[in-house]
Amino acid sequence: MASPYFIIFEKTFSMRLPELSDIQAAHSRIRPFVHNTPVMKSQQLNELFNCELFFKCENFQKVGAFKFRGATNAVLSMSAEERLLGVVTHSSGNHAAALALAAAMNGIKANIVMPENAPVVKKNAVAGYGAEITFCKPTLQAREEATLMIMEKTGATLIHPYDNFNVICGQGTAALELLQEKGDLEIVIAPIGGGGLMSGTSTCVKGINKNIQVIGAEPEKANDAFISFTTGILTPSINPATCADGLLTSLSELTYSVIRKNVDKILTVKEDSIIECMLLVWERMKIIIEPSSATVLAVVKENPGLFKSKKIGLIISGGNVDFRKLPF
Amino acid sequence: MASPYFIIFEKTFSMRLPELSDIQAAHSRIRPFVHNTPVMKSQQLNELFNCELFFKCENFQKVGAFKFRGATNAVLSMSAEERLLGVVTHSSGNHAAALALAAAMNGIKANIVMPENAPVVKKNAVAGYGAEITFCKPTLQAREEATLMIMEKTGATLIHPYDNFNVICGQGTAALELLQEKGDLEIVIAPIGGGGLMSGTSTCVKGINKNIQVIGAEPEKANDAFISFTTGILTPSINPATCADGLLTSLSELTYSVIRKNVDKILTVKEDSIIECMLLVWERMKIIIEPSSATVLAVVKENPGLFKSKKIGLIISGGNVDFRKLPF
Repeated sequence: MASPYFIIFEKTFSMRLPELSDIQAAHSRIRPFVHNTPVMKSQQLNELFNCELFFKCENFQKVGAFKFRGATNAVLSMSAEERLLGVVTHSSGNHAAALALAAAMNGIKANIVMPENAPVVKKNAVAGYGAEITFCKPTLQAREEATLMIMEKTGATLIHPYDNFNVICGQGTAALELLQEKGDLEIVIAPIGGGGLMSGTSTCVKGINKNIQVIGAEPEKANDAFISFTTGILTPSINPATCADGLLTSLSELTYSVIRKNVDKILTVKEDSIIECMLLVWERMKIIIEPSSATVLAVVKENPGLFKSKKIGLIISGGNVDFRKLPF
Repeated sequence: MASPYFIIFEKTFSMRLPELSDIQAAHSRIRPFVHNTPVMKSQQLNELFNCELFFKCENFQKVGAFKFRGATNAVLSMSAEERLLGVVTHSSGNHAAALALAAAMNGIKANIVMPENAPVVKKNAVAGYGAEITFCKPTLQAREEATLMIMEKTGATLIHPYDNFNVICGQGTAALELLQEKGDLEIVIAPIGGGGLMSGTSTCVKGINKNIQVIGAEPEKANDAFISFTTGILTPSINPATCADGLLTSLSELTYSVIRKNVDKILTVKEDSIIECMLLVWERMKIIIEPSSATVLAVVKENPGLFKSKKIGLIISGGNVDFRKLPF
């Protein structure tokens, strides 16, 4: 029987927060497998918003989202024994595709639990990477039960979409590349769903330069991070309903802890702003970004006073859109 | 009174066909004003079509289309006296925006005749660049009458969207940059509407290397160039009806002559293919291209035997899409 001391040690160990050096190590590990995505600018948008915007374009990442960074780091961090038994996850989409591809590239079997109502483009992507898909009802409980069943049956390792140290460190490498290319940013904004990207981003940015402000962007209609951050009590979303389908998930204890430590501010944005900013980027920059990514520009649009004349890095999380179900 | 000899000389002079050196001169002239747009690749599309595709992304050009190259070259080729009186054109959209911006950047007044039913995004763009817009019925006759009226009233110089030597030379600079970056292409494909882009492209490619095949892409439902090229008789389209709204225009005598001389083949594509290929590029490459641009990929899709294992340059003409009127 484990002693109380051992249990506390376990807990402390599992809650070690990532540091810049963990993200740098992740970057060395995943660099041969991921795209160093371009940092794009738009004179038109700079003029429109009276600031200098630098878009780190993870929509051009493999599988069309930053999630490939975290999934790749998690897979590459597994032992040889673990690899033989495969991986499993539940995800509404981008993490699913990311893990499927990262596993396939390393000869590892991937089992993916997806809600029945996931966007078609995301289902197709996962299937295309050769993963085994198990569909479930679109509730957290149904997902978790299906995942647990696969773990018990196969011995596969769970790679959680965000409540995972290695995943978080992988996600932080996007900000690392952004600051390597553009070191004089004054503010970095990233979207918050489950908090994996924001945890990695904020850890990286503050590790490099404490004076750079880190701001989280969250839909008003899925504002669990805003509420948790403001009240100091981890509070999951109840029935979140936003067009930003990548941001429906709630913070975990781990991501909440990192965000409390490293993020300066969380700002929520309206659905209208998200759609307007998505269209603005499509129209002016000619690149496809998904609604979740548009939240970062929506923060700038809704708070002009905060950002005037600033140099701002925006993490564009992905570009996977179901074109037959557009929100406009 | 002009002698018959003089009239013949005039005719011959006005029909001088562009050469590579004209395109090189245009490039030197416009280079400070235009973007050297990226050449993009997609592993997924290469695998899907069994060839190596190199996309010259003029959707990232200023005003979102290659047309800015031709318009800029035309404006920069005007005399000081001509500049004082302004420019005028009729265009369904991209050339209109291009000329408006090129003129504005050089302190020249632009008068633009547009059909009432032009896409909203294109009307807004033209207005945004400060041009004076005259709306007309969507017929060639109505456009030409309105244009003529403005020319008589203001003395403005007509910058035709494609039946213009300097415009053609400007359009050819996209292919010039493509071959500067990727010299070992075996095939170059560009769309054909009025033939300005194809004239410039084919002149440039054949001037650099006669062994590179030059192929024109045209919608089956606006196939005047295909018919003219095949029959040897310049034959305008009657009621063309394609989703590729940039390709509704017909060849002029000048573009027809250049294309007859320099193009190896014209292939027509179905509407379904155009839409499918547009979606493919949006989905896989995460960039916005307009239906007219998708014709070049549709040519590859519809003729797999012709392109297997080849290195193919595709001129992506633009990315101006009315997102509230998508063809899917």
